[in-house]
Amino acid sequence: MVKIIKEENISDFIEDLQKRNAQDYNNVYETVDEILENVRINKDVALKKYTLEFDGVNIENLEVSPEEIEEAFSTIDPELLETIKKAKENIYTYHMNQKRKGYQFKPEGKDILLGQLINPIEKAGIYVPGGKAAYPSTVLMNAIPAKIAGVEEIIMITPPQKDGKIKDSILVAASLSGVDRIFKVGGAQGIAALAFGTQSIPRVYKITGPGNIFVAAAKRRVSGFVGIDMIAGPSEILIVADDKANPAYIAADMISQAEHDEMAASVLITYSLSLAEKVSKELDRQIKQLERSEIIEKSINNHGAILIADSMKQCIDLANEIAPEHLELLTSNCFELYKSIKNAGAIFLGEYTPEPVGDYFAGPNHTLPTSSTAKFSSALSVDDFIKKTSLIYYSREALKENKDDIVRFAENEGLTGHANAVKIRKL
Amino acid sequence: MVKIIKEENISDFIEDLQKRNAQDYNNVYETVDEILENVRINKDVALKKYTLEFDGVNIENLEVSPEEIEEAFSTIDPELLETIKKAKENIYTYHMNQKRKGYQFKPEGKDILLGQLINPIEKAGIYVPGGKAAYPSTVLMNAIPAKIAGVEEIIMITPPQKDGKIKDSILVAASLSGVDRIFKVGGAQGIAALAFGTQSIPRVYKITGPGNIFVAAAKRRVSGFVGIDMIAGPSEILIVADDKANPAYIAADMISQAEHDEMAASVLITYSLSLAEKVSKELDRQIKQLERSEIIEKSINNHGAILIADSMKQCIDLANEIAPEHLELLTSNCFELYKSIKNAGAIFLGEYTPEPVGDYFAGPNHTLPTSSTAKFSSALSVDDFIKKTSLIYYSREALKENKDDIVRFAENEGLTGHANAVKIRKL
Repeated sequence: MVKIIKEENISDFIEDLQKRNAQDYNNVYETVDEILENVRINKDVALKKYTLEFDGVNIENLEVSPEEIEEAFSTIDPELLETIKKAKENIYTYHMNQKRKGYQFKPEGKDILLGQLINPIEKAGIYVPGGKAAYPSTVLMNAIPAKIAGVEEIIMITPPQKDGKIKDSILVAASLSGVDRIFKVGGAQGIAALAFGTQSIPRVYKITGPGNIFVAAAKRRVSGFVGIDMIAGPSEILIVADDKANPAYIAADMISQAEHDEMAASVLITYSLSLAEKVSKELDRQIKQLERSEIIEKSINNHGAILIADSMKQCIDLANEIAPEHLELLTSNCFELYKSIKNAGAIFLGEYTPEPVGDYFAGPNHTLPTSSTAKFSSALSVDDFIKKTSLIYYSREALKENKDDIVRFAENEGLTGHANAVKIRKL
Repeated sequence: MVKIIKEENISDFIEDLQKRNAQDYNNVYETVDEILENVRINKDVALKKYTLEFDGVNIENLEVSPEEIEEAFSTIDPELLETIKKAKENIYTYHMNQKRKGYQFKPEGKDILLGQLINPIEKAGIYVPGGKAAYPSTVLMNAIPAKIAGVEEIIMITPPQKDGKIKDSILVAASLSGVDRIFKVGGAQGIAALAFGTQSIPRVYKITGPGNIFVAAAKRRVSGFVGIDMIAGPSEILIVADDKANPAYIAADMISQAEHDEMAASVLITYSLSLAEKVSKELDRQIKQLERSEIIEKSINNHGAILIADSMKQCIDLANEIAPEHLELLTSNCFELYKSIKNAGAIFLGEYTPEPVGDYFAGPNHTLPTSSTAKFSSALSVDDFIKKTSLIYYSREALKENKDDIVRFAENEGLTGHANAVKIRKL
């Protein structure tokens, strides 16, 4: 049974919600560090050893061959292929808007040039989980922004199945979104390969993509040496609904989030106690009918809630405080209301935009900030695959004109060597 | 004496250079964790205790008063005030180009709206070191991008001097760049105050700015709970010079970097052995004449080098491999050459743009990626103070049209609850 929480207890609930984040990596660092070090030194030999040990398969060639990709296109369900192609187009179109140009300008009347150059990260690595959680959408959501940014070499790694193969939908998605090379390796050993390079696998400068606790811990360990994306916590949805919203839709949307895992959080905020009660009943009714009902029930009971606010304004204030990964606005004035949202990963407007529309298909990225981090971070985007370089040119005249100021600033900060670098110039 | 390194040994040198980064935080985490926890629980009381202990001063009011800011404007050297104002204008003008707008679009012929909203981070905290390293440029370089992004509340913290005051140039720079509130607290305790909030100091969602190992370790610990900027390693300059470059200028520029600290690295790459020898002599000559000669000498001897490449092309390849924080191009064709640079924090063009031009004055940010991280990261910018939220709207008709694809994708990924959230809608 979902909790219905009123005024005085709401802030405690929000605090608990945000604490779900804390994964304890300390238990796995020892194992992970050993794997990282072994791969750094023994390279492909270590990769093959771990792949046998963890994935139960003896891999001869780590790299997926062109024949295997061809085969995937021939075995994939043709309808699914069309769906993936449509999703790819939508994701591509959405992310193309994120492509940026640098800028250069000359301050008026001065022989000075200033600018910001934008270059792609040269090599990016994408981690795609294997097994049951092998999602072609993960491939599209990571590879397409990298491709649009202009990354020269996109390397994807994913653990092989027991038969040594990769799921056809994964290979098809990779091929369609412009991944350059694919390797059959997962876990901390895969992250190590991307960070340090091996005989088969080139080292990359940035690694993105989700993974289990070993993958996440390995990414944290190599972070700084290579770039990484944010490490996501458990997923969450927040639904803000007015009294006219459909309780069956709300319950279904809460459940769609809850089925991810037991730590997922599905929360409704409304000012209508009558809606709250109807949603609670709907939840009970719908959960029973679904495959993953056990996970859903645990998630809804432990981390789900219906919060009763005193007004729509308070609903919005609470939404901004929770800063949810996914925010659905099931209100008649949603096109006005979203303008008051300051903190959210993605906003879904109206009753015909359930979260799954965005998870796979509409175009925006599904890699979103969790656990309140939407207060300071954002969805994965083309920005994550570029870097900026400042450009500065002063002519002799320009340096002469500004010399005194620069020297004064340097001397005030006690850095006489800096002042000297200006003073030594013959102006 | 600076090392002159030829072909076969260059790659070892580059490897060593990149390893300078590894600060060992493990020695300070215990102390830092205790401070963080104490401030989280005891708030202002803990801040005052640590300020007495570490800064040697008993602070009654943690917040800087309007009177203190007024006083700073009256005591500051009027010439320095003008210099800071000019620098502020230049930094403001440069960073205004980084201001971005979101986007929204309707795919042709469909009742769908997609977009990316851009909002400022609501509250940002800026750390400014105290004591000898109290630099007004740090204030400008952190506060101005935050202000341009539209941050509603910019909170600055900086440790007080023994007399309980803050250097006038720091207060003036803060006031000019739009800092909203200033507090007299530094160290790990200051970072804790910004991350958790106290009675006096509001909690913020992102913390930027440089600091000593305790500050850096504290930032790492609270990272994820709040956002942080990158943690910089020791500073470095790389100069690429052709045979016509002025050896005295090169030596002065290497020295200006070396005076920062013993771990700083100053490297010249050239194909001219004759230039290399002249620069080596100039270094010896100039170092003796400077105040900070002891630091400079250690830095140049331990981490400095002149690399002899076989061609200008190899110079550029090595520069891209080193991915330096600061890159000076002292070559006659620098306006062509910079286009081949893929990895650098900032590029300084020609013989009249020594690094100090950019450190304080020209406009680009001086917070730059160190230790090869320019391969995947960038200067601090307005981007660091905004966040993006995706926006998705599907009408009933749009959901109906795409329903089969979304359901197929969800079912392929084994998430029947996701499929159900679409199927339950009456379309």
